[in-house]
Amino acid sequence: MSTTISAIASTTKTSSEKKSIGIIAGGGALPSAVAEAAIQDGHDVHILGLVGEAGKEIEAFPHSWFKWGEFGRLFKILAREECRYVVIIGSVSRPDLTQIHIDFGAIKTLPFLFSLTFGGDDSILSRIVNFFEDKGHIIVGAGDVAPKLLAPAGQFGKYKPSDRDLKDIELGFDVVHQLGMLDVGQASVVAKGYVIAVEAAEGTDDMLKRSANLRQWGKSRLFGSAKRAGVLVKRPKPGQEMRVDMPTIGPRTVELAGAAGLAGIAIEAGSVLLAEKEKLIACADKLGLFLVGLEKS
Amino acid sequence: MSTTISAIASTTKTSSEKKSIGIIAGGGALPSAVAEAAIQDGHDVHILGLVGEAGKEIEAFPHSWFKWGEFGRLFKILAREECRYVVIIGSVSRPDLTQIHIDFGAIKTLPFLFSLTFGGDDSILSRIVNFFEDKGHIIVGAGDVAPKLLAPAGQFGKYKPSDRDLKDIELGFDVVHQLGMLDVGQASVVAKGYVIAVEAAEGTDDMLKRSANLRQWGKSRLFGSAKRAGVLVKRPKPGQEMRVDMPTIGPRTVELAGAAGLAGIAIEAGSVLLAEKEKLIACADKLGLFLVGLEKS
Repeated sequence: MSTTISAIASTTKTSSEKKSIGIIAGGGALPSAVAEAAIQDGHDVHILGLVGEAGKEIEAFPHSWFKWGEFGRLFKILAREECRYVVIIGSVSRPDLTQIHIDFGAIKTLPFLFSLTFGGDDSILSRIVNFFEDKGHIIVGAGDVAPKLLAPAGQFGKYKPSDRDLKDIELGFDVVHQLGMLDVGQASVVAKGYVIAVEAAEGTDDMLKRSANLRQWGKSRLFGSAKRAGVLVKRPKPGQEMRVDMPTIGPRTVELAGAAGLAGIAIEAGSVLLAEKEKLIACADKLGLFLVGLEKS
Repeated sequence: MSTTISAIASTTKTSSEKKSIGIIAGGGALPSAVAEAAIQDGHDVHILGLVGEAGKEIEAFPHSWFKWGEFGRLFKILAREECRYVVIIGSVSRPDLTQIHIDFGAIKTLPFLFSLTFGGDDSILSRIVNFFEDKGHIIVGAGDVAPKLLAPAGQFGKYKPSDRDLKDIELGFDVVHQLGMLDVGQASVVAKGYVIAVEAAEGTDDMLKRSANLRQWGKSRLFGSAKRAGVLVKRPKPGQEMRVDMPTIGPRTVELAGAAGLAGIAIEAGSVLLAEKEKLIACADKLGLFLVGLEKS
């Protein structure tokens, strides 16, 4: 699998060959950002926006809309636009399969749909990748098409972590790594040596909201300092299907980390997507939070 | 440390020697249950109720009240009542040390109080145990004094886990074990192979409330079954300071697990305290939840 990605990535980067890339788009700013980067590199793109998830802004690019379950239509569009390469990007609510519109093309995929109703994230996402690849498409990661959206290594805002923060970061990375081996979560909040919250199915935003209420754990219990303390760490799980499920942070993540009283955010360099990077950094600088990308250990 | 516990435990059980046991009591039904069990075994007890945490019902036993920070008073009472053995039991909010009443005896303990303002649960609790033992007391676990309050092995309610539930239990136990190595959490919620929630600082009740909202993950995504699915697992962390911080479930835990749509609760036999055991089992039987104690693996 990983050799396939690298092969594609290097082809995409080194050859000037024009490609047609289908971008299956969920919500948020990333689908358009990926489309823009691909066009800058001279490729053709066609965005396939998921109704109810993708935003209107995708209409600035060549695009079509599809609904959950319209797999027949999806593959017809990809064929019509000659998109051999496919990027799946943007936020989606996990589909409520009782509500989906099943088209004729989807009937053949019922065994596949059944297979999605059990198991952890990684197994579901691997099945999705295989499903596309069985039909002759090549799934490429958003980070391969638009590497400038990836978190850089080192400090990338105005503030830097303290020695205390670095210890929290180390513990948080350990926690996420250990859990990741069991296909759980991508993020954790640690303050002053105390693990405040661990993300499972609720997502990073919900975990940060909870951490705001648990802020007392992070404060000096003797002096009740109001100073920022603690860190959000986010990194992929070991073996995470990075082509279709890359960890992402955006301005909203920074806002919630700020509201939780945290001192900053640490992410794995090269492995986390930054949505609206400039806005994200400006937001961290304004709130006084550090942003740091750590090399994979 | 563990040899000390076993030595005490076996002394407590095998000799008929009458002991004076000080019970430092937080909230909930357990302090009175422990006192009752000790008295049944022929010991003298004196309950030291923490103001704002312990309930009025402790006044049915020989008792005194103390406030957070009144360490001088606490040790004076233990000396007066000749309580060499001390049990620390019941729920406490983590102390807000900005609000505590520091008495004269506590001034000498300021370095100790400082030491409590950093670190994870285990290191804090070990420091508390050492603090009492330095003063000549012996800390014994509630389970040593009242073994009948410990979770039994095997099914102990009307319902039993399905094969699917057993797989979820196995995964949940793995998750809690892995995290416990990093001094995090004691509990997790797993449904149909998917880890829904992991407990860190928020406590089991809050984790269960969150799981109720995440229930969609646990349901069959294709048929949206309303049937109970998933399990709460609770077990100690590896190396957890069991004398002062034993995992506990009670009727409220069962209610919240029921409200989250879970099929049952699995705990480590002999390592989890059952508060109000009869009421707890009746509640599970009524809601249709299984209760099962698993042997330590």
